[in-house]
Amino acid sequence: MTQDSLTVGKFLFDYLYAQGAKHAFGIPGDFALPTFRWLDASPIQLITMTHEPSVGFAADGYARVNGLGVACVTYCVGGLNMLNSVACAYAEKSPLIVISGGPSPNDRKNDPLVHHKVRTFDTQRRIFEEVTCANTVLMNPERAAEEIVRVVREVQTQCRPGYIEIPYDVVDMPIAAPVIRNVPPPESDPENLEAAIEDAVTMINGAKKPVIVADIELHRHNLTDLAVELAGKYNIPIAATLLSKSVVSEQNPLYVGVYSGGLSEPETQKLVEESDCVLLLGAFLSDVFMGMDNSAALQRKRCILATTEKTLIGLRRYENIQLADFVERLIAAPLTVRPRFENPVSMREPLELPPTQEQEAITVESFFQILENEMPDDATLICDTGDALLGAIGLRTSQRKNFLSDAYYLSMGFAVPASVGAMAANPDSRAIVIAGDGAFQMTGIELSTIAKEKMAPIVCVINNDGYGTQRHIIDGPFNNIHPWDYGQLCALLRYGTPYRVTTKGELKRALQDAVAKPEMALIEVVVPRDDCSRPLRRLGEGLGKLRDAKKRQGG
Amino acid sequence: MTQDSLTVGKFLFDYLYAQGAKHAFGIPGDFALPTFRWLDASPIQLITMTHEPSVGFAADGYARVNGLGVACVTYCVGGLNMLNSVACAYAEKSPLIVISGGPSPNDRKNDPLVHHKVRTFDTQRRIFEEVTCANTVLMNPERAAEEIVRVVREVQTQCRPGYIEIPYDVVDMPIAAPVIRNVPPPESDPENLEAAIEDAVTMINGAKKPVIVADIELHRHNLTDLAVELAGKYNIPIAATLLSKSVVSEQNPLYVGVYSGGLSEPETQKLVEESDCVLLLGAFLSDVFMGMDNSAALQRKRCILATTEKTLIGLRRYENIQLADFVERLIAAPLTVRPRFENPVSMREPLELPPTQEQEAITVESFFQILENEMPDDATLICDTGDALLGAIGLRTSQRKNFLSDAYYLSMGFAVPASVGAMAANPDSRAIVIAGDGAFQMTGIELSTIAKEKMAPIVCVINNDGYGTQRHIIDGPFNNIHPWDYGQLCALLRYGTPYRVTTKGELKRALQDAVAKPEMALIEVVVPRDDCSRPLRRLGEGLGKLRDAKKRQGG
Repeated sequence: MTQDSLTVGKFLFDYLYAQGAKHAFGIPGDFALPTFRWLDASPIQLITMTHEPSVGFAADGYARVNGLGVACVTYCVGGLNMLNSVACAYAEKSPLIVISGGPSPNDRKNDPLVHHKVRTFDTQRRIFEEVTCANTVLMNPERAAEEIVRVVREVQTQCRPGYIEIPYDVVDMPIAAPVIRNVPPPESDPENLEAAIEDAVTMINGAKKPVIVADIELHRHNLTDLAVELAGKYNIPIAATLLSKSVVSEQNPLYVGVYSGGLSEPETQKLVEESDCVLLLGAFLSDVFMGMDNSAALQRKRCILATTEKTLIGLRRYENIQLADFVERLIAAPLTVRPRFENPVSMREPLELPPTQEQEAITVESFFQILENEMPDDATLICDTGDALLGAIGLRTSQRKNFLSDAYYLSMGFAVPASVGAMAANPDSRAIVIAGDGAFQMTGIELSTIAKEKMAPIVCVINNDGYGTQRHIIDGPFNNIHPWDYGQLCALLRYGTPYRVTTKGELKRALQDAVAKPEMALIEVVVPRDDCSRPLRRLGEGLGKLRDAKKRQGG
Repeated sequence: MTQDSLTVGKFLFDYLYAQGAKHAFGIPGDFALPTFRWLDASPIQLITMTHEPSVGFAADGYARVNGLGVACVTYCVGGLNMLNSVACAYAEKSPLIVISGGPSPNDRKNDPLVHHKVRTFDTQRRIFEEVTCANTVLMNPERAAEEIVRVVREVQTQCRPGYIEIPYDVVDMPIAAPVIRNVPPPESDPENLEAAIEDAVTMINGAKKPVIVADIELHRHNLTDLAVELAGKYNIPIAATLLSKSVVSEQNPLYVGVYSGGLSEPETQKLVEESDCVLLLGAFLSDVFMGMDNSAALQRKRCILATTEKTLIGLRRYENIQLADFVERLIAAPLTVRPRFENPVSMREPLELPPTQEQEAITVESFFQILENEMPDDATLICDTGDALLGAIGLRTSQRKNFLSDAYYLSMGFAVPASVGAMAANPDSRAIVIAGDGAFQMTGIELSTIAKEKMAPIVCVINNDGYGTQRHIIDGPFNNIHPWDYGQLCALLRYGTPYRVTTKGELKRALQDAVAKPEMALIEVVVPRDDCSRPLRRLGEGLGKLRDAKKRQGG
């Protein structure tokens, strides 16, 4: 081959770059080294992490902001170590391309024991089949380009991860430039669409207090603007969910907060549950959405559910309708324009900390209040599972896409590595990472990558001395963790400024200092061991009741 | 139920304890909390870790020393995050029980979106089916005990991991005490066994220089003593492999070192490859065993291969023969007693560091020499992948089971978490953990668990400023890592004594100091960036040649 000829590896990364992946995240290994050489030579900027679980979360975080994430690892010891992060992206519909090195077709003859092999050479692909929407092993260079295009398209269409395994020798093989055909987008059945819109208009216009719940699928499929337009044109209030928080601007006058059953702020819950027509757009009707304990009081016959997978008006289902078509047609439909909406979910006033409270111990509630006052307008909040997420329900961000969390899959350890992806995708927004001490001990060491990349997040570790969320469900010694002197991480990494705060005044000043300095801050926020946010307290009570009830049912 | 009645959870942990699991390793989560409550109430001692990948390695390390490991995690976010470690145990035949919490049978009705669920409620089980020899979801309490016994027995028989998923409500359900029947061990076909022994005797007695290679299956199935007896009775030299290193005492006068193709010490390689009858007992004929580059010169017609899966005398295969029967019958067979073996693989003399070398920079080779001089006789060496493993090929341990490494699967990050399991299983042996800086950055933070459990390993981080092993294959910026000030981990964890050594004299004194103190020592061993062990140098060259050759074949 000549120096300029196309190879599998060159095509792969040029194509991914053209599709919008300006960064990739990875850890090399021997079967993947030739692939990393092509990645390094491509226009994509590679960020290597310390551990594969973090590679997946970083690429997922990038995908959530940017639209397409790329995670590059080696065979089995790399790929299988990233499985949980890819499962998270599957569960929450994040478009993530997994690229794994692999043994060569020659290695596979006669099924020998080759290092990293688990049961068969197909084990890793079979496992990833369970958590991806498309997968391929590029055994044949002549079909490689076509296969790459197929997997990437499925990922973009379905917003789920895809898997591409590349034998270490195939990646270097020359190929002809492929002809890439455009595929027309799927179309709605026009009669079904007509009928659904007619019924939806009747239901919405007949309702006194319609409300829109804008969920995460809208964001994944670039439809949020349509939902906001629908709300604005007809003065319909619009709520978000924990998963979609911030994809509708939280400063929008029609925005009424995060709905999540009994975990919601009371005004938001009332507004949604007393509505006589709830438009659930792009919704995940998960247990988290329902408040974890089925506390959500939403009657199906008063809901319109439109997602990429189905369309329901009340109890009636309509087949073959595209979500985009449905929302676009609703905007154009003869809906009644409502009077100006008097938003009862008042914007919380910037609450200056009274001097009398300076010496008070920090609680989870007050942490979020003080943070809301001090955080920059353009900040991106990345919250880990537990009270770091639940406590943020009531906090308002300013700009679009300024909140990230794995709020359905709820894997601990998401926030720090995901922030690496978010910062790469949106370097102009200051990242504020919030993690409980238990979650932080899982993946917080990824501050190493933040140091390597000279990124400048403000990282808050909420230290309540263990797995606090679980303590509210069942407590035992298994919820204890080793107490770290968190600030010493800055010395370990020779990077960033450590803070340790125990009073509200100290927290305020640490945040002010961190916001003022363009460098990484690591703030250990000490809260009482048994303190928690109001939503978590409601959740602990709710879950306890629910499980008792299920047991009585003889489940 | 009365307070004393048996439940699924009580039976599970009582049974595992009776089968030898005195410790378990885990991280709780909401679906697993009721299971953790039973574990906490059982006689098994639970060690909670910081991150699930480490849970699997710790339980695996425990299994390798103790015979049965238990890893307890929550549904999907826990289990899937541990998949790579379980795959490692599968690949290297380590008997590991995975216990995962799960949703209740009631939760699963109508297939709702429940947090942690990926695609279906069966996703996690299907994935674990690929890396376990038996699996079960305890949906029915009446069959739970029988299912638990079945999975544990398969794990013990096959020495592969097994998977038990327990819905959070089922674990509390009362059950009747089960009748546990003994299952007779499988038997050899007597005629086949007779024929195989006859042919083996002919081949061995006809050989001038027979040699035994004792591999890891012997250890897993408690057959090492038989192999040592066979060697001793007939004066046949005996080698180990990287996987089985130390399961035959390295002080045995017949022991000739670790055989691993071109990675072996030259005398060991010569002795095995010039033998006219190589008894491969319990062997994994992997690429690592073959020296990674097919450098192993072993003709099949001069080998006897006896494993749990097959028996081959030269090119002839014999069906249905149990490995134990084969070795026992060989011991009793009329083999020729050889003359006393003159071991050419001389024991390396304790090499006192010459004062003239005190100021010299440490190399990987000299690190292992100095370590061999200074380490206590009863130490257990736990080596991570890379030069931490390859450099240890020539180092001799004193006692049985004093060397642990994932020397076939080669997953980086094994050593620190596996040492937690090894120390729990054998608290009387001082653990010496050796990891390269890249591997240490993956899971070294598990020193947190070591601190929590007040364990006292000597941890050596070989700092060559990046992924050194990979640099010898293909180098690029992807092999760079962020430079840590490793000793600061002791400040972070408020535990242990840090050392940083750059000269041979400093290393010697740090090791002497660490050996003298019964507490954790963390020694950063700085070696030149491009230095490596002789085996790694041979490996880099060999792999390069091999891949070039394969490419020329047009693979």
